[in-house]
Amino acid sequence: MKGKKIINSPEMLVPEIMEGLVLASHDQLHPVPGATALMRNDMPEDKVALLIGGGSGHEPMYTAFVGDGLADVSVLGNIFAAPTPDNILEATRAVHRGSGVLYVYGNYAGDNMNFDIAAELAQAEGIETRTVRVMDDVAVARHEDRRGIAGAFYQVKVAGSACREASSLAEAAAVVEHARANLRTIGVAVRAGSLPGTGKLTFELADDEIEIGMGAHGEPGVERRKLPLAENLAREMTRLVVEDLPFRDGDEVALLLNNLGSSTLMELMIVNRTIRSVLGDAGISVRRTDSGPYLTCQEMAGFSMTLLRLDDSLTHHLEAPCCSLGFTQSVGT
Amino acid sequence: MKGKKIINSPEMLVPEIMEGLVLASHDQLHPVPGATALMRNDMPEDKVALLIGGGSGHEPMYTAFVGDGLADVSVLGNIFAAPTPDNILEATRAVHRGSGVLYVYGNYAGDNMNFDIAAELAQAEGIETRTVRVMDDVAVARHEDRRGIAGAFYQVKVAGSACREASSLAEAAAVVEHARANLRTIGVAVRAGSLPGTGKLTFELADDEIEIGMGAHGEPGVERRKLPLAENLAREMTRLVVEDLPFRDGDEVALLLNNLGSSTLMELMIVNRTIRSVLGDAGISVRRTDSGPYLTCQEMAGFSMTLLRLDDSLTHHLEAPCCSLGFTQSVGT
Repeated sequence: MKGKKIINSPEMLVPEIMEGLVLASHDQLHPVPGATALMRNDMPEDKVALLIGGGSGHEPMYTAFVGDGLADVSVLGNIFAAPTPDNILEATRAVHRGSGVLYVYGNYAGDNMNFDIAAELAQAEGIETRTVRVMDDVAVARHEDRRGIAGAFYQVKVAGSACREASSLAEAAAVVEHARANLRTIGVAVRAGSLPGTGKLTFELADDEIEIGMGAHGEPGVERRKLPLAENLAREMTRLVVEDLPFRDGDEVALLLNNLGSSTLMELMIVNRTIRSVLGDAGISVRRTDSGPYLTCQEMAGFSMTLLRLDDSLTHHLEAPCCSLGFTQSVGT
Repeated sequence: MKGKKIINSPEMLVPEIMEGLVLASHDQLHPVPGATALMRNDMPEDKVALLIGGGSGHEPMYTAFVGDGLADVSVLGNIFAAPTPDNILEATRAVHRGSGVLYVYGNYAGDNMNFDIAAELAQAEGIETRTVRVMDDVAVARHEDRRGIAGAFYQVKVAGSACREASSLAEAAAVVEHARANLRTIGVAVRAGSLPGTGKLTFELADDEIEIGMGAHGEPGVERRKLPLAENLAREMTRLVVEDLPFRDGDEVALLLNNLGSSTLMELMIVNRTIRSVLGDAGISVRRTDSGPYLTCQEMAGFSMTLLRLDDSLTHHLEAPCCSLGFTQSVGT
């Protein structure tokens, strides 16, 4: 099955996404002059700045999560490609308000290299940065190699609130590191998405197979198997996440059910039953559930489940109000 | 391509969706005893009640739009099938607070029949109802035959606010009729979704073809053609919507870009550029844009664009705060 997308030209994807987002934002966002980056219009003075970003093609992540209580600017790479150092640097300059800039992005080699170069260049200009990479994917055994997947949403949410409130960059970074230490995700791939322009599928999977732990771009996972019942799949995925941290009897968590592209809310709700049942049996209580498309990979089918272990600080930052194209919540929700 | 979904059994889809939604709602929703319907837990006394519903498989429509400022109860049919009269009646009884019940649902023969039967039975019990069907699809020439598609979101949003504020059922119904009279949608199908369980595709479309105006279940549209550039497609769709009402120079509108299942936010933002450009040239200003999955048809690819012409009353009701699983907004957004 070849890709079949409503686009104009593969070369123009990123500028056109940016233009569409700015228009859809109705004066919430503007492009950073000279950079492939979108920034909020109501950036306050003095605050610790939050810069996020990554490859395009995963919308709404990252760029739809820019706004009050979330990120201050997002840097866009090409489709599935890291943002370039010059774009990151330009966005860093634009967003810096004298209190430094926190970088939050997924742990991939290309992103790490480019953000690190930008951080060095910023440092040379006297702009302090700190980095807390998203590394939530339990499918990767070695902790330092863990990819950043949909748990990025919770990490960005906590970071957005922490950067709004913190009196220093170090204080904000410490909160986000604490969030990351309590964040775990596992995904399952059901069907590949396709690259816009070429139509090439991002990976191969037999008609009756799924792969647990496969990355958002088709990176190797934990186990390939025949399509199981939703209950059995949800049970296995929950076990992988719970045992990894591990989450324990008495823990309170937030649960994120992320649609990777063409899975349905119907399917997310069906697995939610089993996830809740397994967590309940383990004495783990769920305080809130977020479900829908947060980090997609074009029309890839599959979903991921993320657990964030809560304490007073993380609950406060997760529940703080925020406003963006991709996610808005008011006080008390 | 056969369907490949994360489910347990086709027979259990609807009860499992309901159970998953109740759990995800964290004490916002409960099942109506004896009915396939979900109701809000914080139903106020006296208010005019809003009952919505339709076939399952289109999530988040309708059931994720139950909550304060939206619907009070949603009745679920089987996959792509109208809710039954007994379920609608039971939900009507549950939600009636002495001020009557407004029915809002899509204009399809099966739904019309079943909701009308329920309304008669309710009447016999002394419960007053009024009906304002969603009929926004401009692909159907005869106005009385027009299907209800994604514009249902705006109609439910306005209805939710109107029912919260209205002093009578007739007053609320008049507001919703006014919204409907100013609501127009056109969709485009790019690739079919599949029926959960059987895997059967909901329609046939060649690998390089699209159909403008095709209904969410594969009902005939306006024109089948080769996949065009996004710009040309968006231009043609905008023209069809604008000329239908018609929307005129000086009008202010809300714009809803609905992902029918597996299209991407990337594609919605790319067409948004052209839609805004065409509307701007026609002197039509866009006050707000809502984009994402609102009414889906499983993993169907394609999108629809809806325009709602605003005046002070409709702007007020569209911008009023609301809270639900599928859509939340606070004052001033």
